Amino acid sequence: MFENKNDSTTSIGSMGEFGLIDHLTKNFKIKQNSTIKGIGDDAAVISCDSNQELVITTDFLLEGVHFDLSYMPLKHLGYKSIIVNLSDVYAMSAEPTQITVSIAVSNRFPVEALEELYEGIRAAAEIYKVDLIGGDTTSSTTGLLISVTAVGRVNKGEAVYRSGAKENDLLVVTGDLGAAYMGLQVLEREKEVFKVNPNSQPDLEPYSYLVERQLKPEARKDISRLLAELEVKSTAMIDISDGLSSEIIHICKNSKVGCSLYEEKIPLDPQVISACEEFNLDSTTIALSGGEDYELLFTISTDDYPKIKANPHLTVIGHITNEKEGIHLITRGGTKIPMVARGWNALKNEE
Amino acid sequence: MFENKNDSTTSIGSMGEFGLIDHLTKNFKIKQNSTIKGIGDDAAVISCDSNQELVITTDFLLEGVHFDLSYMPLKHLGYKSIIVNLSDVYAMSAEPTQITVSIAVSNRFPVEALEELYEGIRAAAEIYKVDLIGGDTTSSTTGLLISVTAVGRVNKGEAVYRSGAKENDLLVVTGDLGAAYMGLQVLEREKEVFKVNPNSQPDLEPYSYLVERQLKPEARKDISRLLAELEVKSTAMIDISDGLSSEIIHICKNSKVGCSLYEEKIPLDPQVISACEEFNLDSTTIALSGGEDYELLFTISTDDYPKIKANPHLTVIGHITNEKEGIHLITRGGTKIPMVARGWNALKNEE
Repeated sequence: MFENKNDSTTSIGSMGEFGLIDHLTKNFKIKQNSTIKGIGDDAAVISCDSNQELVITTDFLLEGVHFDLSYMPLKHLGYKSIIVNLSDVYAMSAEPTQITVSIAVSNRFPVEALEELYEGIRAAAEIYKVDLIGGDTTSSTTGLLISVTAVGRVNKGEAVYRSGAKENDLLVVTGDLGAAYMGLQVLEREKEVFKVNPNSQPDLEPYSYLVERQLKPEARKDISRLLAELEVKSTAMIDISDGLSSEIIHICKNSKVGCSLYEEKIPLDPQVISACEEFNLDSTTIALSGGEDYELLFTISTDDYPKIKANPHLTVIGHITNEKEGIHLITRGGTKIPMVARGWNALKNEE
Repeated sequence: MFENKNDSTTSIGSMGEFGLIDHLTKNFKIKQNSTIKGIGDDAAVISCDSNQELVITTDFLLEGVHFDLSYMPLKHLGYKSIIVNLSDVYAMSAEPTQITVSIAVSNRFPVEALEELYEGIRAAAEIYKVDLIGGDTTSSTTGLLISVTAVGRVNKGEAVYRSGAKENDLLVVTGDLGAAYMGLQVLEREKEVFKVNPNSQPDLEPYSYLVERQLKPEARKDISRLLAELEVKSTAMIDISDGLSSEIIHICKNSKVGCSLYEEKIPLDPQVISACEEFNLDSTTIALSGGEDYELLFTISTDDYPKIKANPHLTVIGHITNEKEGIHLITRGGTKIPMVARGWNALKNEE
């Protein structure tokens, strides 16, 4: 489970809370001018700029609910815990600048395991240029719990909300959908195989993209710059964490509009299509309800269509309609099906 | 355990994640002008002012580690989860303005239990004038987990750090110490009595102050205004969450100074003194290591002494020395004892 090859382990309790935080965060460097004081006081201090607004978002990741350490390496988990939060910052059209990371761990985790986790957090902080400015470290009675808060900045008045979609706007999605969910199916299957035969060597090569999307997702830091370069202003934006249908419904409810989504337009990677065939799953259902894609879904005026139509990162998948027309999927056969949110719902899953 | 007297309960899963958040936060009102967008988008949005700095702090509260629901009513727990974070904001000499609250709950909690929890959060938000602007709600495999992040504002350059204490400065504490820890001892004892005889009616009257300090602590929102009125500028400040000795050591290490603390000066409530006698505990040890007092500890120049000496909220308990002289407790008998951090340490407690 732990990538660290050194057999000798150090117990967390031997370091004390403050020693542990110092140890885990010693390789983190401050990169943002706006960070005045990071870890080491009652609170972090960051600067303000009257021409900007701050965005703040927070997410929980819990062992046994959001991740399974039997196939999720701790370094990847650390990385992903940051990405899922940064994705929310990008979905406001903001630039992330600071993060706080709180962890609760049971004594079964040696310090070396937490070093792996923080190595992944550090990698994400480096790549996305965010400063780790605080957090809390405590013991848990069971498993590993991670709570991340991300702070970002956006020029005053330029945050993009879920509520700005207008009738006739085009619905655009970045990248492709469903791969993270299919990656999870592959990993779950391998886990079952491993239980029966611990000597089996899984061949994950045919699923490499799927597994990477599940274990090492990235956030779309390129899109806000891309749209600026294309001189396109999105009218509404959301990130795809729960699945396409759930996010479309959020935009429609918040914008008081309807939407027609075209099944044939939904971007799918070839690996998603072949894995869906293998697992006997419908790829459209997976794209609609799979979740964890961390792509961005946004709306633009039809006037901007010529500016984006040739872009390989962006796919127009539908258009916004009057609220009265409702929210529909138009199937390949031309059938109009009312859309319902069947996104991954951590609370419902438990029942 | 739950204060709600209605016997019919609603399962969390029946509401779905988004329905649950909407339901729990419907009575929260936005009070701060700086809150542009609260709950309901990918991230909250708050305004910036170039004349101010923002402070950010976060704390975990875990069932079985930080609280015991057998004597902690959920409404009090919600209230306390906010207070412990606001205390960190006040310890920077900042004014809290926004909070995010993430909760993870197992299915044993009905919606009505979470309503109680959020009623306490709402009460704290009202009294301390902070806006609930976000959070995350998910299921947990065990118990209740709460992660709160608090945001505050302070005039540019006026945040008070742990690092500003100077040789000869006076060490000042607000309120009195040790009561929250003794409150915990009383509650733990009653829990044991209840286990043996569930019909016993505990008489908590003689311990009312202690129990209140444990179950319904307040943060010192008055101090920063008081110091401004007295025209006193603190040189360093920290809140007392882990115990006096641990916090003094933090100030000394960060400020590169030593300290002499006078045992006879430590402010103790009469209930703390009598409870310590009853429990056969040393009241000085409790004040030094008990924790959870949420008072403020700060240093001021000796020039400011006349301004604070008559104030009932403030007690001078020692003075800052040269780093070489170390950190000592001067006992009532005049003995000089080196101080070590024995604060409440969630990680070490577990061993």
